[in-house]
Amino acid sequence: MLSSSEIADIRATAASLADVARVQTLAHFRKPDLHADTKEAARFDPVTIADRESEAAMRAILAKARPNDAILGEEFGATPGTSGLTWVLDPIDGTRGYISGTPTWGVLISIADDTGPLYGIIDQPYIGERFAGGFGAAHVTGPMGHAALKTRAPRALNQSILLSTFPEVGTQVEGDAFRRVAAHARLTRYGMDCYGYALLAGGHVDLVIEAGLQAYDVQAPIAVITAAGGIVTNWQGGPAHQGGQVIAAANADIHAAAMALLND
Amino acid sequence: MLSSSEIADIRATAASLADVARVQTLAHFRKPDLHADTKEAARFDPVTIADRESEAAMRAILAKARPNDAILGEEFGATPGTSGLTWVLDPIDGTRGYISGTPTWGVLISIADDTGPLYGIIDQPYIGERFAGGFGAAHVTGPMGHAALKTRAPRALNQSILLSTFPEVGTQVEGDAFRRVAAHARLTRYGMDCYGYALLAGGHVDLVIEAGLQAYDVQAPIAVITAAGGIVTNWQGGPAHQGGQVIAAANADIHAAAMALLND
Repeated sequence: MLSSSEIADIRATAASLADVARVQTLAHFRKPDLHADTKEAARFDPVTIADRESEAAMRAILAKARPNDAILGEEFGATPGTSGLTWVLDPIDGTRGYISGTPTWGVLISIADDTGPLYGIIDQPYIGERFAGGFGAAHVTGPMGHAALKTRAPRALNQSILLSTFPEVGTQVEGDAFRRVAAHARLTRYGMDCYGYALLAGGHVDLVIEAGLQAYDVQAPIAVITAAGGIVTNWQGGPAHQGGQVIAAANADIHAAAMALLND
Repeated sequence: MLSSSEIADIRATAASLADVARVQTLAHFRKPDLHADTKEAARFDPVTIADRESEAAMRAILAKARPNDAILGEEFGATPGTSGLTWVLDPIDGTRGYISGTPTWGVLISIADDTGPLYGIIDQPYIGERFAGGFGAAHVTGPMGHAALKTRAPRALNQSILLSTFPEVGTQVEGDAFRRVAAHARLTRYGMDCYGYALLAGGHVDLVIEAGLQAYDVQAPIAVITAAGGIVTNWQGGPAHQGGQVIAAANADIHAAAMALLND
């Protein structure tokens, strides 16, 4: 059990990380000098200079402020710690959106113990919008000010809005499962990257379903959505914080309805 | 030929329309009271109260400031005029994005003569970002300040970024044509609504290809993109300002490369 001063320190540190990541990521966003490397020849996975500079800046803060915590970052991998707490960092989630200039990528910051994520931030630097949740509270701060986050109330699946980043969700089998749910949703939209999870936490959509995720793609969304009243699991209903197949739902009813079709 | 004072008046009026539309659209955006009617039972086409209030507020301004101009609006149809100029208004382009809370919908405002659009604005109220172009200049004003818009330089199709709002582009035949281009692009992204045209004008993506558009969906994008150095035509290479099949391209080279595949 973390003390209230420890919780306050974690919140403040997470905010500092998000602040520095905003500066680093916006320094290259929509700039003509933006370059995208390719990590794997077989799969299109651009990584930008901004990605690395952003994570390096966050790690420099953690090295001073929280030297005993472990770090798992998308760019620089795992750094061990002794506190039992691990910071999980994705300096630019949605690099394909980032290189396309869209306002849908984000900075994902979270802290976990052995049980999973405790607190997380989804930050959209261009809009200037921050979704944060954990330790019993969830809030957004952005163009419309500061407000509590609360997921949507239950509604029928045929009245629901479903998001996913790509229409080609995971493997063929995974894509078929996704499309069984999409066929019953009122509306399916693509292209939101991590911003889709923020919209779910904010009560604007009902479901986000994705596959092939990494731990650093999903831990901050789990913290924010759970604190806002939603549910995030893998497609078998178990913990999702290691990534893979992920379903995020506004409430237990819509989660159950979508799970039945995913596993039909 | 419009006089410089006439042009200045048109620019100022267009800005006033965009300002009032921001207030009206944000009054309902992401609010729990947001309702979506259905225009056609067969096809999901939500229309919100905000849509109608926004267009009504813009029309009230035009009735005073530009009483001799005609108006074509998405919500309230055609109002005749005597000046030979027509304001074309889409108070919320991307209503599906709007009801999902995404920052990709926009207010589209343009003015046309018999030859097509002369000046247009693509405004994204939530981000606070305005893309305007025509009469020989194109600019964006938003989170990063004020800057000229310039479309991307030519590059090979396999290095290009292609956007469209839905993966199901138009009819089966239209969708097949779209996918011939998508198969050769470096990256295809969905879900951007009219914001995709703004990204093209800003030099961030190379192509936007859509079908089944209305005149009010495309006239403001045509004005902004053309003023930024790009090209917008229908899939036969003719004028696109009546809507239908639309291809917007950053330059003549990428337009030609995509057109060859669209009509393969």
